[in-house]
This record gives sequence, structure tokens and C-alpha cells, in this order.
Amino acid sequence: MPEKTIYTGAFVHCKTLKELEICASGSMGVDEAGKIAFISTSPSTPPPPGWTTAKTIRPRGRHAFFFPGFIDTHTHAPQFPNAGLFGSTTLLSWLSTYTFPTESRFASLAFARRVYARVVARLLSHGTTCAAYYATVHVPATNLLAELCHERGQRAFVGRVCMDRMSPDYYRDESAVQAVEDSRASLEFIRELGRRGQGERQGDGQGLEGHLVQGIVTPRFAPSCSEEAMRGLGELAREWGVRVQTHVSENRDEVGMVRGMWPDRRDYVDVYDEMGLLGDRTVLAHAIWLSEEERRVIKERRTKISHCPCSNTCLTSGTAKVRTLLDDGIDVGLGTDVSGGYSGSMLEEVRQAILVSRHVAMEEGDKAKLSFEEGLWLATRGGAKVLGLEDRVGGFEVGMEWDAQMIDLGSVSEDGALEEDDGLVDVYGEEKWNDVVAKWVYTGDDRNTQAVWVKGRLVHSRTGVQL
Amino acid sequence: MPEKTIYTGAFVHCKTLKELEICASGSMGVDEAGKIAFISTSPSTPPPPGWTTAKTIRPRGRHAFFFPGFIDTHTHAPQFPNAGLFGSTTLLSWLSTYTFPTESRFASLAFARRVYARVVARLLSHGTTCAAYYATVHVPATNLLAELCHERGQRAFVGRVCMDRMSPDYYRDESAVQAVEDSRASLEFIRELGRRGQGERQGDGQGLEGHLVQGIVTPRFAPSCSEEAMRGLGELAREWGVRVQTHVSENRDEVGMVRGMWPDRRDYVDVYDEMGLLGDRTVLAHAIWLSEEERRVIKERRTKISHCPCSNTCLTSGTAKVRTLLDDGIDVGLGTDVSGGYSGSMLEEVRQAILVSRHVAMEEGDKAKLSFEEGLWLATRGGAKVLGLEDRVGGFEVGMEWDAQMIDLGSVSEDGALEEDDGLVDVYGEEKWNDVVAKWVYTGDDRNTQAVWVKGRLVHSRTGVQL
Repeated sequence: MPEKTIYTGAFVHCKTLKELEICASGSMGVDEAGKIAFISTSPSTPPPPGWTTAKTIRPRGRHAFFFPGFIDTHTHAPQFPNAGLFGSTTLLSWLSTYTFPTESRFASLAFARRVYARVVARLLSHGTTCAAYYATVHVPATNLLAELCHERGQRAFVGRVCMDRMSPDYYRDESAVQAVEDSRASLEFIRELGRRGQGERQGDGQGLEGHLVQGIVTPRFAPSCSEEAMRGLGELAREWGVRVQTHVSENRDEVGMVRGMWPDRRDYVDVYDEMGLLGDRTVLAHAIWLSEEERRVIKERRTKISHCPCSNTCLTSGTAKVRTLLDDGIDVGLGTDVSGGYSGSMLEEVRQAILVSRHVAMEEGDKAKLSFEEGLWLATRGGAKVLGLEDRVGGFEVGMEWDAQMIDLGSVSEDGALEEDDGLVDVYGEEKWNDVVAKWVYTGDDRNTQAVWVKGRLVHSRTGVQL
Repeated sequence: MPEKTIYTGAFVHCKTLKELEICASGSMGVDEAGKIAFISTSPSTPPPPGWTTAKTIRPRGRHAFFFPGFIDTHTHAPQFPNAGLFGSTTLLSWLSTYTFPTESRFASLAFARRVYARVVARLLSHGTTCAAYYATVHVPATNLLAELCHERGQRAFVGRVCMDRMSPDYYRDESAVQAVEDSRASLEFIRELGRRGQGERQGDGQGLEGHLVQGIVTPRFAPSCSEEAMRGLGELAREWGVRVQTHVSENRDEVGMVRGMWPDRRDYVDVYDEMGLLGDRTVLAHAIWLSEEERRVIKERRTKISHCPCSNTCLTSGTAKVRTLLDDGIDVGLGTDVSGGYSGSMLEEVRQAILVSRHVAMEEGDKAKLSFEEGLWLATRGGAKVLGLEDRVGGFEVGMEWDAQMIDLGSVSEDGALEEDDGLVDVYGEEKWNDVVAKWVYTGDDRNTQAVWVKGRLVHSRTGVQL
């Protein structure tokens, strides 16, 4: 149970898609439930009654601020050992060369523990307070991932991957029935995990939605799931009221394959719709090659999109048209999609979203460009909407939960000497606040993320940071 | 004067454009002049006569290797305070909004010292043992940058920027004559700096070519230089036998402007050719929008290209066709081009080159893709050719100079716990050597660069590294 704490200093969050809200000196009170109880935007305001003896946390650096935790809407925890290994492959050759052999190793719980412990710790150190994880087909390893998130206090959606056809013999679900049953078993385990946490740091008595770690139904993608499995998973998700995550329209060969497999369906999105997998609780990753009609259906169903720019470039998949999706009114977040993408850092993913948007702009004009503010919005507020958490996290508002990171940037001294511990951001002291944040976005890394909290609980801090 | 030293352990360098050469256990002897005197590819070979008492340096990590220092063929030292600040601008608006105001501040030597000391230290910490720097129009600040490179032992080409027209009143050369005279003054200062170093760490008695820090003639780009200035600078470069660096064909508006300014010249490259600025000692940055004819002339003149992928994407300039340039037989290196690019790290630039090549591949097919090995080649051997240093640096060969970095990557322990000091590379211990290097390229940063040497002299090491 976190103690009542007042955070004091500078606060930055996304007010709208295009605009940061920056309070250079203020304070926020976070209660024992991890919720923001009050916000003061003036340094001289005394704390409200009942808060005078609360613990205070104030960053020590000259260029420090609190920022909402990042929300990674799409990543594959078992693929982290392959980060940086993809050669010149594209989606389908990459799956068979790198991905399936590695994922199959998660039959071993010892291997799973080694990898997953590292992944959860790594993402927390990057300021990722919430992640939507794909695990593997293995129920025990998937449950272990959920347990590790629970123990470390990371907000997470953990999905057992379903794949009952067009998958290698050594790595697949045995049957559609088994695929659904194994998924159900994992949902059950994760629900119990949440109940165990109830009244402590985990649940808050509002059912599954209040659980910090939740199960999520995860068909890998249409080509590797039988219709029976997909329909069963759709029913399972509705029965449990849980979310669904899968991939859509990442690669042109994949899109062609889906067209060939379902000649009677209008398009890729229509396949998922027909299987009962499309709805406002579904997250589709990539969405690069969508037609206008597919976007219309996604908008109508209020289905969510996870944009994974680093992965899309590495695997030469294509460029998702994020501006078009946003203009259509579709909810979009960012995903690191390791190991299609090579970095688990959402700050890197924000940069990649900006870079990819410039490649789109080279073709389609300046309007396509995402600003760094928009990148940050996608990584926080946007991600929260994609995962149905927009009332809980993604920004700093009274009543929202304290999922936050404390950022500290390096100062360039008068003699210019390099301070090894400062990281890579060089602040000269004359920059406007927006420029300070821009420098963080473009040149920052985990060294600048000094401390991380989820729901008021400290889940990561760097050595030497005093809190 | 460095002492005779034997480096022992694993060595990695680029054998060809496409192939790494990896010696998992060997040793190299580096003599007092900083040259590689012998290479042994077997751990059991005893050192040659005269080397039995030499100092030995062996990295301590399990996943450590020596790699050639990086060569940054194009960056702007005075623009580092703007790293990450470019908003949605493109080349011409970026120059007037961000670049000229900042560069004009280098009239102050105190400001110049603060920035340049940080830049040189920062690039060394990234393993950049050689950089081709643009400075500003100011002679004293340019000379100071050269002095700082000399003191810190970084191999460098330092160029006073010439711009005598189409530049703001507050920041420009007064006249063409003054532009050439100021450039000459800076060349003279830097030559004297080299002579002072003669017999010590700097020169080696072979004229300017042997100087660690050299002047380089630097017309900003055709639009901001009068014909008189450009012709004068061409003559100056020939008289002194020094190199030339400038920009070409970065942005479509710029190309159109050049066409409008020189309606009688065939194209942008032809303008430089006519002004006597094109030759085998000239480095042209960007080269995005070249015609086939321009590539033919560049090939014929043996002119060099600096590819700056991060900058080209950030400023929405376009995508350089590196595969085409290489297939044409043109020498290509990489440049960080801060602050068009936001990172001074050449490892980041290698990644960006790979990413941009995939965007080219989306249009032109798989052949355009650069592998990580090719990225590393561009950052070492390629850069050396671009700067005429291919017989001295860029690889490990007997007779070449010891410009090297010691890389150490993190190991994932059996319990997966995060070791803060390890940096971001996760090596599980089962990877093949090529995969270990790939992980460094995609997920490494300055934390993995434990120590850096130029011409045998230790120029950077991280705290706690024992050498």
C-alpha cells in the first residue's frame, strides 16, 4: 500500500493531441489508493487539510519534471532475446526464421523466467507503466509473465497466443478446442492473481477492469487461426468481458494470403468482424494497408489501432498512415512490437513514429508529419484510450491514478565537461520548456527516467536517486 | 606518446562492404607511434621479440570486443545546442529559424568553448575517433574547435564556414575576399597546431596529411556563396592541398533555387564543378536528388558523399539512394549532421541508415536494403575513404593506426535481473558472434563504448573501466 505522498516540482502531460500542458512549479497529492487527490499549480499553495504530514518527493535536478508513464499497446515479451535480430527478412520469413524457434523455447519455465523477469524490469526502466503483452502458446509461461508483472507492479494485459494452423509442428496449438481452453485457463489464472491482490495494490473492487494485470484474448493473426478457434476466442472474450489483441494488414504478402484464404470476405478487417473479434475492446496492431472501407468499419466498431513504426520499418512492412487514422477519428496508440522493432523503449518509439510520419509526408505532404507533442500523446493518452484506460491513466487529473515517471535531464556546465551520469540530453539552461521536452524526446533514454510509479507504488528507480 | 601496448581479446572489423571479420581471440600490438605493429589471430601465439614486456589491455566483460573507431563524415559542431529542435521545418526554414541564430552566437569564445568542449567529449564517448566538422564563420571559434580536438586527441577536419550572400545580416561573411582570407587564416592556425604536435602525438612528418587535426575548406552551400567566394575557396584548397566539404542536393526547394540562380549550368553538381570545388578531396553531404548525370560526374571526379539519414528524415528532405551510389562505385560514408540529425552517435546513424534504406526498399525493392554489416562498413571503412584516410584507419591491419573502441555488452543473468550499469544490450550467451554484433548495432549506445583510442592514445574511458 503506497503512503500518501505529495509530488512537487514541474509537471508535463499532454493536454490535447497537439498541445502539452506544462506546470513549471506545482504539486500533486497522491492518496493511499494511488489516486491523484489534488493538484496545485502554484508553488505557494499550502497542502490541503490532512496532507500536512504527507511524505514529499521533489526531484533534485535543475531540468526535472514528472511525466505520465508510457503505455506500450503492443509488444511480444518472448521475442526480446531476438531484439536486433531480423536481418533482411520480412514478416513471413521473419516468423519462421527468428520468431517461432524462439517462442517455442517458452515451454521451459526456467527460460521464461529469465527472459520475462528481464523484460518487465527493462520496460519499467524505460518508464513503461503499462504494456499489452503477447506471450506464447504456453499456459504456464504466460501465467508466469502475468505473475511477474503483478509482483513488480506493472500494469499489464497478458495474452496467451493462439495459433492452431499454418504454424510449425513444433510450435502450435493442438486444436481449436484446445486453443480456446488454454486461453480460458490463462484468463482464469490471471483473474485469480488480481483477486489475490484485491484490497492490496492490485484490484479496487470494480471487477476485472480494476485489476492491474488482466488477461487478454490473443489470436496471433487470421492466417494462423482456424475459423473455429477465432469464433471460440471471440465468444470467450465476450463471456469474460476482456479485451482482444491481434495483428492486421501489416505486410502485403500477408494481406494477399488472407484474401486467398477468405475469398468470400470483403477484406482482412471483415474476416475479424465475421469471426466476432472486432469491437471497441479489440486492439489491432499495424493497420498499414487498410482500405477506406476497412477504416470505416474500424471507426464504426470503435476498434483500436496500435501503431508500431520501428517494426514496420525494420521488416519493410510499409508505413501506417497515422494522420489519416486520427483524422478518421480512430483511436491510435504506439507499440514497440519487439522484436519486429528492436527497442523496448517507448521514447524511442515516439521518435520512430515521428520519423515514419516524415516518410509518409515525403509522399503525401506536410500534413502527415507528427510533432513530438503528438508522439507523446500517442504514447500516453492515445495508448490509454486504446486499452480503455483513459479515465485512469495517461495524464495528470484529479481522480486518475499515479502512473508516472520522474525525468531528469543533464545540464551543460560552463566548461562543457561531460558528466557521465547525465545521459545524452544536453540542456544549456536557456531553452523554453517546450524545447526542454523536445530534447528529452529526441535525445533522452532510460538514464533520464529516474523513478517510475504505477498506481502510486514505486516500481523502478535508478541507483542514487533519493526519494 | 602512447606506450607500446598489446590489446588482447576479440576483434571485429569490416572485411568488405558485406562481411565482418571476427577474431574471437587474438591480439594486436600497437607501437609508440600508435600504429598496429603485429596481429595475431591465435590466443596461444607468444608476443614477438621486443614485446614481451609491453603493457597488455584485455577487456573484462564476457561479451567484449575491439572495433574500429567511428568516422563521422559530416557534422556541425555549433549546432549541437539545437539537437532535437527542428519542429516541422524543412531545410530553408530550419536554417533561418534555428541554425543561423545559434551559429551567430559563436562570436563569443566563452560560448564556443562551452559548446565545443561538450561536443568533442560527447563524440569521443560515442566512439567517434574522427569527425569532419563544420564550425561557423568565426575564425577564433573555429580555431578553438581545432585546438580542443588537438588537446583531446580526436582526429578531425575543422572547417570555417563561408557564406557571403543570401545569409542574414547578423551572420555572414562581409565579402568574398574576406571569406577567403578568413578561411586561409584558419587553415594557417590549424597547420601550426599540427606542427606544434609534430613529434609528439600529432604529426608524423609526412606533411599536412599526417596531422591529426586538419583544416578543411567549407563553403556552406552554393546558394549562400558568391561565385567569387567559391572560386577563391577552390583555389585555396588546391594551393593548400586540403579537403573541401559542402552540401549538395539535400532538398527539392534548394535544388530549384540553385537551378534558378545558375540557369546556364546543367545542374547543382555542375555548379560546384564549374567553381573548381569538385574533386577527389571534396565531400558532398546529402546527395539525395542527384540525376544520373550528376552521379556520373561525381564518380568521374572521385568526389565523396556523406550520407546523413537521420537529418534527411527529420527535415523531410528525402531519401538518398545509397545502394545506387555504391553500385555506381562512388565512395560513401555516414554523417550525423547534427542538428539536422538529433544524435551525435554514429551507432545511431548506422541504425538510421538501415531504416532509411528500408524506406527506399519499399519503393525500389529489396536490393536497396542495407544490412547492419554494410552500415558498420559505411561508418568505418567508408568514412575513411571519404576522408582519404583508408590507409590509416577504418580497420585493423598491420601498419594502420590504432583508432579503436572497446565494446562491452551486457549479459542476462540466470535470474534475468536488470544490471543498471550494463546498458541496453541483452546478450543471453547463446548468440553467434554476428548476432552479438547485430545486437550492439541495434540496441547499443555510449554505455557500451568502454574506452576509445586515437592513434594509440587513450582519449576516452568510462568510469570504473580498468585498462
